[in-house]
Amino acid sequence: MYRTHNNGQLRAADINKTVTLAGWVQKTRDKGFMVWVDLRDRYGITQLIFDEERTPKQVMEKATKLGREFVIQVTGTVIERESKNPNMPTGDVEILVSELTILNESLTPPFTIEDETDGGEDLRMKYRYLDIRRKPVRENLIFRHKVAIAVRNYLSNQGFVEVETPYLIKSTPEGARDFVVPSRMNEGQFYALPQSPQTFKQLLMVGGLDKYFQIVKCFRDEDLRADRQPEFTQIDCEMAFVEQEDILNAFEGLTKHLLKEINGIEISEFPRMTYDEAMAKYGNDKPDIRFGMEFGELNAVAQHKDFNVFNQAELVIGIAVPGGNNFTRKEIDNLIDWLKRPQIGALGMVYVRCNEDGTYKSSVDKFYTEEDLAKWAEVTGAKAGDLICVLSGAKNKARTQLSALRMHLAEQLGLRKNDEFAPLWVVDFPLLEWDEETERYHAMHHPFTSPKPGQLELLATNPGEVKANAYDLVLNGNEIGGGSIRIHDKKTQALMFDYLGFTPEEAKAQFGFLMDAFQYGAPPHGGIAFGLDRLVAILGGQETIRDFIAFPKNNAGRDVMIDAPALIDEKQLEELHLKVQINS
Amino acid sequence: MYRTHNNGQLRAADINKTVTLAGWVQKTRDKGFMVWVDLRDRYGITQLIFDEERTPKQVMEKATKLGREFVIQVTGTVIERESKNPNMPTGDVEILVSELTILNESLTPPFTIEDETDGGEDLRMKYRYLDIRRKPVRENLIFRHKVAIAVRNYLSNQGFVEVETPYLIKSTPEGARDFVVPSRMNEGQFYALPQSPQTFKQLLMVGGLDKYFQIVKCFRDEDLRADRQPEFTQIDCEMAFVEQEDILNAFEGLTKHLLKEINGIEISEFPRMTYDEAMAKYGNDKPDIRFGMEFGELNAVAQHKDFNVFNQAELVIGIAVPGGNNFTRKEIDNLIDWLKRPQIGALGMVYVRCNEDGTYKSSVDKFYTEEDLAKWAEVTGAKAGDLICVLSGAKNKARTQLSALRMHLAEQLGLRKNDEFAPLWVVDFPLLEWDEETERYHAMHHPFTSPKPGQLELLATNPGEVKANAYDLVLNGNEIGGGSIRIHDKKTQALMFDYLGFTPEEAKAQFGFLMDAFQYGAPPHGGIAFGLDRLVAILGGQETIRDFIAFPKNNAGRDVMIDAPALIDEKQLEELHLKVQINS
Repeated sequence: MYRTHNNGQLRAADINKTVTLAGWVQKTRDKGFMVWVDLRDRYGITQLIFDEERTPKQVMEKATKLGREFVIQVTGTVIERESKNPNMPTGDVEILVSELTILNESLTPPFTIEDETDGGEDLRMKYRYLDIRRKPVRENLIFRHKVAIAVRNYLSNQGFVEVETPYLIKSTPEGARDFVVPSRMNEGQFYALPQSPQTFKQLLMVGGLDKYFQIVKCFRDEDLRADRQPEFTQIDCEMAFVEQEDILNAFEGLTKHLLKEINGIEISEFPRMTYDEAMAKYGNDKPDIRFGMEFGELNAVAQHKDFNVFNQAELVIGIAVPGGNNFTRKEIDNLIDWLKRPQIGALGMVYVRCNEDGTYKSSVDKFYTEEDLAKWAEVTGAKAGDLICVLSGAKNKARTQLSALRMHLAEQLGLRKNDEFAPLWVVDFPLLEWDEETERYHAMHHPFTSPKPGQLELLATNPGEVKANAYDLVLNGNEIGGGSIRIHDKKTQALMFDYLGFTPEEAKAQFGFLMDAFQYGAPPHGGIAFGLDRLVAILGGQETIRDFIAFPKNNAGRDVMIDAPALIDEKQLEELHLKVQINS
Repeated sequence: MYRTHNNGQLRAADINKTVTLAGWVQKTRDKGFMVWVDLRDRYGITQLIFDEERTPKQVMEKATKLGREFVIQVTGTVIERESKNPNMPTGDVEILVSELTILNESLTPPFTIEDETDGGEDLRMKYRYLDIRRKPVRENLIFRHKVAIAVRNYLSNQGFVEVETPYLIKSTPEGARDFVVPSRMNEGQFYALPQSPQTFKQLLMVGGLDKYFQIVKCFRDEDLRADRQPEFTQIDCEMAFVEQEDILNAFEGLTKHLLKEINGIEISEFPRMTYDEAMAKYGNDKPDIRFGMEFGELNAVAQHKDFNVFNQAELVIGIAVPGGNNFTRKEIDNLIDWLKRPQIGALGMVYVRCNEDGTYKSSVDKFYTEEDLAKWAEVTGAKAGDLICVLSGAKNKARTQLSALRMHLAEQLGLRKNDEFAPLWVVDFPLLEWDEETERYHAMHHPFTSPKPGQLELLATNPGEVKANAYDLVLNGNEIGGGSIRIHDKKTQALMFDYLGFTPEEAKAQFGFLMDAFQYGAPPHGGIAFGLDRLVAILGGQETIRDFIAFPKNNAGRDVMIDAPALIDEKQLEELHLKVQINS
């Protein structure tokens, strides 16, 4: 036994006990006649004291040579601390050391092992094992574990069975790019790593498993954007004999349970909103509803006056910014500049100051009367003291721009509080979305999503209008989960593949086994998948998923700590029947 | 809602309730004026009844057309069953159906969906989703889930943190072959899939996480033997500031907990045995100790007589087969034939019948007196009525052969009871093992295993004799887990790599990040990994791990259901900078 207690454990009640502790030297203070050492482990920090009068000489000497991050073991007596530290759980005591063993030495770490470190992102990633010694990182990993085990126990208690689906599967061209794995035993053939266990969970429903879940790694070989990882973790779920309502209820339950268990928050409201409504009200299919600023559609009250910009626009929309009348002219100009940046691409912004005395002052006073502006205030819900921001243009563009402005302002005004949680279902997503590049419709969710009852016929005439039995779970402006009721009959599935541009041969080659399975009595079924990385980050009140991943990859998909990917042996390549061909 | 109850739920107390059920048609009996249907789902079977007098005509008609595995929904009244079936939980009731909806039709399945099916292995694998509908397969998957969640909750309650380590890592030449994953973004480079998270869990210990576990998929591209899968699941664990004793205690706790929780069995004895002892007593490093038949070493009592076969042998060993004196001459001859098969390779067997009257009769009476044989009986622990089986030859060979015979006989005599559990630690494994092929020593466990204190020096002079801080957890003759105390200082690790034939450059290239990490204060640490697939099978009282895997691969590493691996697009290969080269 290396220790009798850990470093977060000792209290005043332990005074006079002889204890053995082990851990890392967080820091030392050497006053010559006395040396203090902060000894750290996962559980906390305990102060050690070595002093000329009470500590054996050779122990004292060793103590003066301790460096940061040395691993040591000490035996000593718990004594009362002279200057107590109320900020530390062990702050009432210290250990008067009688024996000291250096278990391992340490080079000076490349950055400080403190809550606030001096190490940059790159350095911390290269030495991730040292970064993990820092409390915030360590706590994030422990937090993630707590969330995962809470999910597992909740779902398990609800009758869900966790089933491990295979990682070495088959490449499918639909969706993102697959990572592939060459097979040595099957010459020239490849496995693919799953982008999700989608087909397998559907097969488990065909297999009668009724309620399935899995916390599982998924893989996408996409060009990485910030905060996206080539491997990520999904809470994958599927249920048989369910309608959309059953799924929403089941996972509303999970979400409430997690917020209660992890964050201590009782959620009373769990609103639902259609995709169309979300787009109209927030310009966004994952609106943050912790604050208002809902869109007001101003076409009826702002068009047909002399302001041609509005008259020619497909859509005129505005939001009321609470307290925004306080913005200076410069602040408003900054907002307009922000909107005009290429990333947003607005041409300008019209604004209305709602004065405390009930009058209005706008940037388009030439064209609109106070009465007109009062109507704008009514539509946007603006009160005295607010600022109305109005954008116009093509419908989708204007909405996207105003949504960006809304989020930007909410951030600025501190309305996105990370200890407040507002979940929301967005339902009735479009079944298809138009892809500019390939000039055809793609499944918005995936090709197994069922259209709303009675809308199948629309596919032929007006495919963009068809709504799906598809839903997203949104939390604080983030999509944390999404799913759908699946097509469960072979005929509809074949029709869908047809609309998505698969030839029957392609569909058979890619999804033949699923279509085969559907011939043998597939039950109605549906499911949902949550991104665990994102969910954990949000529950933890943070933005960056990388902070909740033990060993993340950088934006080039590299693990800089182990330096992967890397070249492999020629012999290995040969065994895999492969030759590398670098494009020059 | 597709159903008000599931098919395992209704009891006599529910009589007269109106219920809606959904599920699969297990079977139908049509007597013209009456139709019975067994409706099945994950939870059980409920009998439906349709009858001419009480069921609407068009429902009756539809009922006669139901085929096996049709998916249906029915509404009806729970009534008392005339001929109750005490073997079914729902056997007291049946549902008098008033409404019937066919949710999906089914082709006739390629094999019967019954506990005992007529489908062969290949067919059941191809239609695994139908195989999973069979109760034994479904129950195995649910059983696996129960074991996994029991493991997670136990370890979590003991302070272990489950951390997800990456799947896209770096190839290492040590150990089995890696599966590799070409990187599109890093031309000509490859990730590797982990054979185990070994280095990552050690880095987590360097990172101060103290107690780690993970239930995780691992990958080995080995030529497959029966019952081995290219992807398999490990319960991976590591602890810091521990000695071997701490680890053995911790996982003795887990094992006892599982046997209690899953099998309802209290384990009182948890013996430990050195590797040398296990080899001497059982000829095997994973002995099944549910029964005796320990080896007796007979050199002292059987050599130096006139029997040259024994005189020339390095080792003469025997076991006492309980009640074996009952074997007929033919049965004994069969045993000898079994031993002589090339897989075992024994040259013969000497046997001694221990008669009920205390006399002995042996196959070597020419050479040995009754007194001699009495000594054999004493050494092997044979009692009146037993049979002593004796083998001789080179030490390792004789032990291996006698071990095979011992297991064969135990199987035959029904001594390997699958509801009896006898766990055992085997400790002090050799550090190295000689590899005939490469003519050098390999790490028996892995290159991070620490030698026993004080034995490091032996490496130079007598490497085969060095014992390691390595241990296996054995259950009923199966290795279910293995681990070691790791080397935690850079110097010893470098020495070890040297002995294993790595140049410093190779060691650096492969394990540089771990050796780097060890410079920054690595704590003493050690761990263990369990094979979940095997553990679950043994706890489930079965032999075949494949029966506990939802979608297993066959012996050629193929998933015959989805037909993977498969060819991929030329375009995909090009993006990955690869060309397939089939060796002609």
